[in-house]
Amino acid sequence: MSIRELVVLGTASQVPTRTRNHNGYVLRFDAEGILFDPGDGTQRQMVHAGVAATDINRICVTHFHGDHCLGLPGIVQRLSLDRVAHRVPVHYPASGHEYLQRLRHASSFYDVADLDEQPVSADGIVASGQFGTIEARRLEHSIDTYGYRLVEPDGRRMLPERLQALGIAGPAVGALQREGQAIVDGRTVTLEEVSEPRPGQRVAFVMDTRLCDGVYALADRADLLVIESTYLDEDADAAHAHGHLTAAQAARVAAESGVRVLVLTHFSQRYADPDAFGVEAARHFDGEVVLAEDLMRVPVPKRRP
Amino acid sequence: MSIRELVVLGTASQVPTRTRNHNGYVLRFDAEGILFDPGDGTQRQMVHAGVAATDINRICVTHFHGDHCLGLPGIVQRLSLDRVAHRVPVHYPASGHEYLQRLRHASSFYDVADLDEQPVSADGIVASGQFGTIEARRLEHSIDTYGYRLVEPDGRRMLPERLQALGIAGPAVGALQREGQAIVDGRTVTLEEVSEPRPGQRVAFVMDTRLCDGVYALADRADLLVIESTYLDEDADAAHAHGHLTAAQAARVAAESGVRVLVLTHFSQRYADPDAFGVEAARHFDGEVVLAEDLMRVPVPKRRP
Repeated sequence: MSIRELVVLGTASQVPTRTRNHNGYVLRFDAEGILFDPGDGTQRQMVHAGVAATDINRICVTHFHGDHCLGLPGIVQRLSLDRVAHRVPVHYPASGHEYLQRLRHASSFYDVADLDEQPVSADGIVASGQFGTIEARRLEHSIDTYGYRLVEPDGRRMLPERLQALGIAGPAVGALQREGQAIVDGRTVTLEEVSEPRPGQRVAFVMDTRLCDGVYALADRADLLVIESTYLDEDADAAHAHGHLTAAQAARVAAESGVRVLVLTHFSQRYADPDAFGVEAARHFDGEVVLAEDLMRVPVPKRRP
Repeated sequence: MSIRELVVLGTASQVPTRTRNHNGYVLRFDAEGILFDPGDGTQRQMVHAGVAATDINRICVTHFHGDHCLGLPGIVQRLSLDRVAHRVPVHYPASGHEYLQRLRHASSFYDVADLDEQPVSADGIVASGQFGTIEARRLEHSIDTYGYRLVEPDGRRMLPERLQALGIAGPAVGALQREGQAIVDGRTVTLEEVSEPRPGQRVAFVMDTRLCDGVYALADRADLLVIESTYLDEDADAAHAHGHLTAAQAARVAAESGVRVLVLTHFSQRYADPDAFGVEAARHFDGEVVLAEDLMRVPVPKRRP
């Protein structure tokens, strides 16, 4: 069962509301379950969303403001309580190491969680696996902040009609994929003859930040871009001053970066109607815009053709 | 406006459920707003319950298990964010001082909250004020734990018909209350002649613990007793082993201690139907039994006659 989707746990910036919990996002990407920025109460939001502790096998923290990390103690303790056996790498800005220690050991519990602390102190690949790689990029906020993206490598999609025409079946297909060519009826068949390019998928997670190079680096050709848009453009000065983005900025990044689905979140409570974020974004980006709501599930769009 | 009520924020033991957040209780007692045991997500439960950060002027932590304290960082940061000007004493088991520091400084924020750390290391009065006193009593759990009770001193209730009969009015009434007597028409009138005893109210908060002397000391003549009943009596052995109470034990304590309203909470998820706690308690206690639910408000009953 190969599921690729974003499960939204919380979408509030700074303070929770009746309808929005502090931040929290789970990216399910086949066997990967990556928890981003668990804010206060994320443990309970997981119950509401039907995400179990054992579904989480990686945690990425962008920065150590409370609305992005105060749920970590509950998650860590839940991993222990539920005896989650697998190792869980935690990626976080290295300068926040002391905060991570406090959150990890916030109260008394029987600690058997296998957390693997992975402080991030520079741009680059922070993890790789079956899924591809996870990259971190420095962002510009009031404190040290890194955004993340998952990059699946490009591959090739086998073409059954070509394989059939050439009489290639069974183990020979695997050999072709592994080795790039195979001898069939005395003739060399190359992988290119029987397959077409299959672009890897990219999911990017950008918060909190003002516009900077890191935002573009993360958003580049993302199939799904989850990005903070705390403000509307009428408050662009405040956004810049506080190290945040506007919906228009996020949408322009998406348009310029070839993004397919744009998920806006982290809305300031100063705006009564969140639909305004969607209206503003649609003026700059003609792809799909999703205004994140708690407990929403957003599928990663099918691969690019 | 004199409001005396318990606002229930969360009632789950160990893990939150769809209907029960981790613990959290606010006792509103006239001008006092005492937050007990803020578990993960308490900040959001306060939003749901309509309790503002500025309503909190005291915090009591019974022990440093996650379901009783992981909400503290969110509360502390909210006190700062909302610029709550008053001092907020925090009472907690002294042995958990390190945990309190981690929770208090769990992540990066602009810290202007005026927290007053009040570690508790022995039975006794930990605070006094307009409302009376707050006492702590050591309980018996798997880690250092203290229960708390608020004790309003006994007073006297003035009897308007007696005052009127003696022609006492205006400032003379206040003088009588303050000094215990007054000269009226050349005769000494004592406070006792024109008033009757007015019992002070008591509200007790007992969790987590097995049955011990501290439980009885806290429950003694409580008008409202908020007490954990994690288990049913069929699992009394497990309750004892894990340092918890059964509904029957809690109810017998209430009956033997002259309690008026018994609020059971902190139910184990092992029981499908929480009504079983009420049925069990009613077999041992004939006062009012309340099964706590999230966001419920329980009035402190009117004074005893």
